[in-house]
Amino acid sequence: MAKPTAPHTKTKSLPIHKDRDYVVAVDIGGSNLRVALADANGMIRAKWSASTKRTSSPGMVLAQVRAGVQELLQQTGIARRSLRAIAAGAPGVTDHKAGVVFATSYLRGWKNVPLAQLLQSELRLPAVVENDVKLAAVGERWLGAARGLRDFAFLAIGTGIAAGIFVNGELVNGPAWVAGEVGYMIVPGTPEGAAKPRTPGSLETVIGGEGIRQQWMRSEHRKSSRIVDNLNATAIFERASNGDRFAGTILERSARILTYAIYNISTVLNCELFVLGGGVGTSKPLLQAARRILKPYTQPARPKLVASTLGADAQLIGAIRLALDKAAG
Amino acid sequence: MAKPTAPHTKTKSLPIHKDRDYVVAVDIGGSNLRVALADANGMIRAKWSASTKRTSSPGMVLAQVRAGVQELLQQTGIARRSLRAIAAGAPGVTDHKAGVVFATSYLRGWKNVPLAQLLQSELRLPAVVENDVKLAAVGERWLGAARGLRDFAFLAIGTGIAAGIFVNGELVNGPAWVAGEVGYMIVPGTPEGAAKPRTPGSLETVIGGEGIRQQWMRSEHRKSSRIVDNLNATAIFERASNGDRFAGTILERSARILTYAIYNISTVLNCELFVLGGGVGTSKPLLQAARRILKPYTQPARPKLVASTLGADAQLIGAIRLALDKAAG
Repeated sequence: MAKPTAPHTKTKSLPIHKDRDYVVAVDIGGSNLRVALADANGMIRAKWSASTKRTSSPGMVLAQVRAGVQELLQQTGIARRSLRAIAAGAPGVTDHKAGVVFATSYLRGWKNVPLAQLLQSELRLPAVVENDVKLAAVGERWLGAARGLRDFAFLAIGTGIAAGIFVNGELVNGPAWVAGEVGYMIVPGTPEGAAKPRTPGSLETVIGGEGIRQQWMRSEHRKSSRIVDNLNATAIFERASNGDRFAGTILERSARILTYAIYNISTVLNCELFVLGGGVGTSKPLLQAARRILKPYTQPARPKLVASTLGADAQLIGAIRLALDKAAG
Repeated sequence: MAKPTAPHTKTKSLPIHKDRDYVVAVDIGGSNLRVALADANGMIRAKWSASTKRTSSPGMVLAQVRAGVQELLQQTGIARRSLRAIAAGAPGVTDHKAGVVFATSYLRGWKNVPLAQLLQSELRLPAVVENDVKLAAVGERWLGAARGLRDFAFLAIGTGIAAGIFVNGELVNGPAWVAGEVGYMIVPGTPEGAAKPRTPGSLETVIGGEGIRQQWMRSEHRKSSRIVDNLNATAIFERASNGDRFAGTILERSARILTYAIYNISTVLNCELFVLGGGVGTSKPLLQAARRILKPYTQPARPKLVASTLGADAQLIGAIRLALDKAAG
């Protein structure tokens, strides 16, 4: 990955001490904000989290981060002065270089927030920010399912769908920092029309968590049966593997659409590996069905599909990596 | 673009002299083999071409290249010893690093041909090889429609469809050197099944030159009218702009499918520009229709579409660039 730089960061860097220096990793999510304290080897010493259900303004996020760091320092007995850098992941389009979060659909009213600068003033630490899916890709490449690979894609499938993509050993960003927004991809079985601003893209409308749940609610099963739970995607896919025919249809359709998207990405990039992450993406029945459907697609090359090995920690581990890089100057 | 290196090239490089050094550029095409002699400023001094209709073995290609170089030296009066390097583009999957052409559908029986090494022995010049579409991308980035861009795609639409893609200022290759083989992409309107080895991919089946010609031959027009020419794609699209309703339907359908493919690539890469090349890709009516259809697709970002400015010379100009890089060591 490219050496992270935040041009506005004026703090001088000193060599990092493996035995006494620490970094802070933050994952700002749609429902939770998580903070981790890690040592210079990348080992997490303690974690803290808080709900972001009522969090909106950047100021509220900063207050939560500060509270989390404070709590973790007390809990571990680590001195404030041992902290060397902080890295935060945001659920939206992020200019990593400038340290600015352009927008996020989860935190209302966020627009061009200079988050790196804010974190740096708030915590008096060198700070970097990155899109959360790209952070997860950094994490999986460092300590997860894609260790050391030059070309791979981390595909996060939750409510939304996005990819963190490495090409020639570097993250793909694009001039508007929206590379990897494959939730907008159009494949057979998705809507073909243009997505409107602040609405989900074609692909995520159908096979994002909410899309799958809606397929289930609309299914014949729903109409004919009296006892239908409002299941989430993972539970629906589990039902499919237990023989539920309607759930099976939804799983098959979703896996086929997912497979087209993966195949299409691989025709563009020839990435050898796709790491599936996120609440929906780590569903075993989905992974198995996608692997089966992908099997005959050998031309020009068939990528390997695996589940994330870091799970929900992928973003935090990616943030630790970036914070360590930042601390090392 | 990555500094081209061919590890097998033992020839020592000396500083290049702008006023007395020359390089050879070769484009091995399905119907023609072209050779150009260029000076150290990249200016083409003379061009030569021969039919490859009866060319098959690597030996025959080498003989044609040698004949072409010989002819050009005589024609220009340039001395043999002024040649500093040769670069060749091949119409198939090519390992640029090793200098090997894995396969090409145009020259029968080519399999793992160490073309760089063969050219080097044959002509006693440092040699590099590259896939022809990637060469065209290199050319457009150097002197054409994509000058100096870090992130863009050159999309060649002829009989087949493929892209030469730059990300972070470097060509995307992938571990199997098949990045950019987007002729296999699956979008609404293309076949959904897996392509078999040595058969065209989903996208090129429908909107490659042959696919469009077949749509025309199958059209109602063909059935009902007595005078229907066996037109090529460009001529069909021209008819569409002149008001032919059946040709218009084919143009609209082809442009829509092309637009989905372009949009999908741009969700992956956020490349700001697509340069359309190749016999079909440079059709003005097709470009205009694709631009119109793409217009509402603003999320997450809409790429710009332009026609190649180098046209059929793009590959040769890319080859000159690589040969100059090779000569410069």
